[in-house]
Amino acid sequence: MPFTSLDDIRAACRDLPSGDEAAANAAALRQSQLTKPPGSLGQLEELALWLARWQGRSVPRLDHVGVLVFAGNHGVAARGVSAFPAAVTAQMVANFAAGGAAINQLASLAGAELKVVPIALDRPTGDITCDVAMTVAEFLAAVEVGGQAVAEGCDLLAIGEMGIGNTTAAATICAGLYGGGGARWAGRGTGVDDAGLARKRAAVDAALACHKAVLGDPLAVAATLGGRELAAVLGATLQARRAGTPVLLDGFVGTAAVAPLARLRADALDHCRAAHASAEAAHRDLLGELRLTPLLDLGMRLGEASGATVAILIARAALACHAGMATFGEAGVSERSSGG
Amino acid sequence: MPFTSLDDIRAACRDLPSGDEAAANAAALRQSQLTKPPGSLGQLEELALWLARWQGRSVPRLDHVGVLVFAGNHGVAARGVSAFPAAVTAQMVANFAAGGAAINQLASLAGAELKVVPIALDRPTGDITCDVAMTVAEFLAAVEVGGQAVAEGCDLLAIGEMGIGNTTAAATICAGLYGGGGARWAGRGTGVDDAGLARKRAAVDAALACHKAVLGDPLAVAATLGGRELAAVLGATLQARRAGTPVLLDGFVGTAAVAPLARLRADALDHCRAAHASAEAAHRDLLGELRLTPLLDLGMRLGEASGATVAILIARAALACHAGMATFGEAGVSERSSGG
Repeated sequence: MPFTSLDDIRAACRDLPSGDEAAANAAALRQSQLTKPPGSLGQLEELALWLARWQGRSVPRLDHVGVLVFAGNHGVAARGVSAFPAAVTAQMVANFAAGGAAINQLASLAGAELKVVPIALDRPTGDITCDVAMTVAEFLAAVEVGGQAVAEGCDLLAIGEMGIGNTTAAATICAGLYGGGGARWAGRGTGVDDAGLARKRAAVDAALACHKAVLGDPLAVAATLGGRELAAVLGATLQARRAGTPVLLDGFVGTAAVAPLARLRADALDHCRAAHASAEAAHRDLLGELRLTPLLDLGMRLGEASGATVAILIARAALACHAGMATFGEAGVSERSSGG
Repeated sequence: MPFTSLDDIRAACRDLPSGDEAAANAAALRQSQLTKPPGSLGQLEELALWLARWQGRSVPRLDHVGVLVFAGNHGVAARGVSAFPAAVTAQMVANFAAGGAAINQLASLAGAELKVVPIALDRPTGDITCDVAMTVAEFLAAVEVGGQAVAEGCDLLAIGEMGIGNTTAAATICAGLYGGGGARWAGRGTGVDDAGLARKRAAVDAALACHKAVLGDPLAVAATLGGRELAAVLGATLQARRAGTPVLLDGFVGTAAVAPLARLRADALDHCRAAHASAEAAHRDLLGELRLTPLLDLGMRLGEASGATVAILIARAALACHAGMATFGEAGVSERSSGG
């Protein structure tokens, strides 16, 4: 049922399903019996337990893995905050459709089904430096687009975004939620020069000054300062929790998009893993605020769910070991000696 | 032609092929034309260039990827330096053959051919605390086993090892090459307790005291303090350089095994990438000495080429983007605006 008000979303957050600790414990027991020193697969073991917990299966599966990329346009792009013109959003959506973007190659390699969802590209959000990004109705509609994009029976979902100007929106959301202004949260994004960075910081600060009144309300922050594709990322992440689908968060924008959920409820993102640490500097700061530890640190800063999709490969490695390895008993391998 | 003396190996190191800078430059030019902000794929771009440089192809290929795991036994295991009994080396080799180990699952996932090479498991090396690990002839034979294991036409090679007691041998090699004793280089390996760690440190220090005379000679260090599987890793890594095959180094033991090459010639490992930072603490210290930056940091400490094989997945992601993405021109996507 679509959310008809911000209060509906707040109510959904109060009522989130918990993880399946029995499944996670059974997965941990299995890990302890596999032919390796305990703990020696590190994060691969943690990932297997995380998938088990949120899928509710002691041996999780990755038969149906999805990649969602939401795209939107931003009025603030007119402020010269990006290294690329706003037309690139639609051009990249066409590139996704033609199979030419990074995410096409990565999703194919990861055995994941890619769904690209452009949202009202001909209707950029309001310029947040002097206007609201979206009305509440527009925000709710974009959240709904995100929720609807989550396929039933999806075993793991990588969620990302594309939108010229959206690192400025993301920075403003972070500033609105955690304090600090453009200097703390605005970075070079797709590669702005010093003058572009100065314009970007100024845009964040102007938006904060213009919208002081909403800063205490995480969902109002998302609607007023965000963007349609960010709202859809939020909606998809919330729906995934309700559907028992673990989520790999992508970079700075994709993580900023869901930060309002964590502000509403501290454990709202427990079904999510931070796929990577983006080269966009503020991402690490944001991950720290969210107490999320990134799985990868490859200096990527592309968005498009690219980092999250590379992390699908790591999740597949985790599951391959968890599901496929022999136990000490099966293999006739001696366990630890008592002394060692 | 097999090496018949340590001087033969020294001569081979003086005569190493260089990377193909023309191929790397052509790959960099291609990267700059792909539909993404320049540099936004971070390490994926670096990996594509590295593969191009060492394969000598501007668009590298990963059609034939290999995983080599060398196994050996260690006299020093009798000193109580491992959490597992020495019999586990042979048991794990049987587990590899039966397909039950982590590396079987990871190699299969990575589309790589796994070759496991046990070397004289019934003949452990001498106990390095009071004896040489190998004679020069035994060392050269193990180096040759490694070199022979490198298949012709291999596009990328992950090299690893298995051997109860071999983190002690690796620690002693590092101490012999870089100074510092057991306190600096011995760690918990497969998971020794405090008493085991104390025995391990003492074993490293005893070995260093016993073999002071060889510490100035990197290859003599490898022969006297190392192990057959470490010598084979060295031999395979050297042969890969001569064959135009880039190498993913695995963890602490696999990296310590090739450190003598870097001591002979600073750029001897330029065809290698450190696949990951192991949870074995000394690995980071060793990577620092070698000026290698690890690709992954997943808290793994299993050996068996497991970290290197997970990194094959990242190399495949790099190549997928490099080879498969559209250029700005092909996709009709606008490049950076001059101002941004």
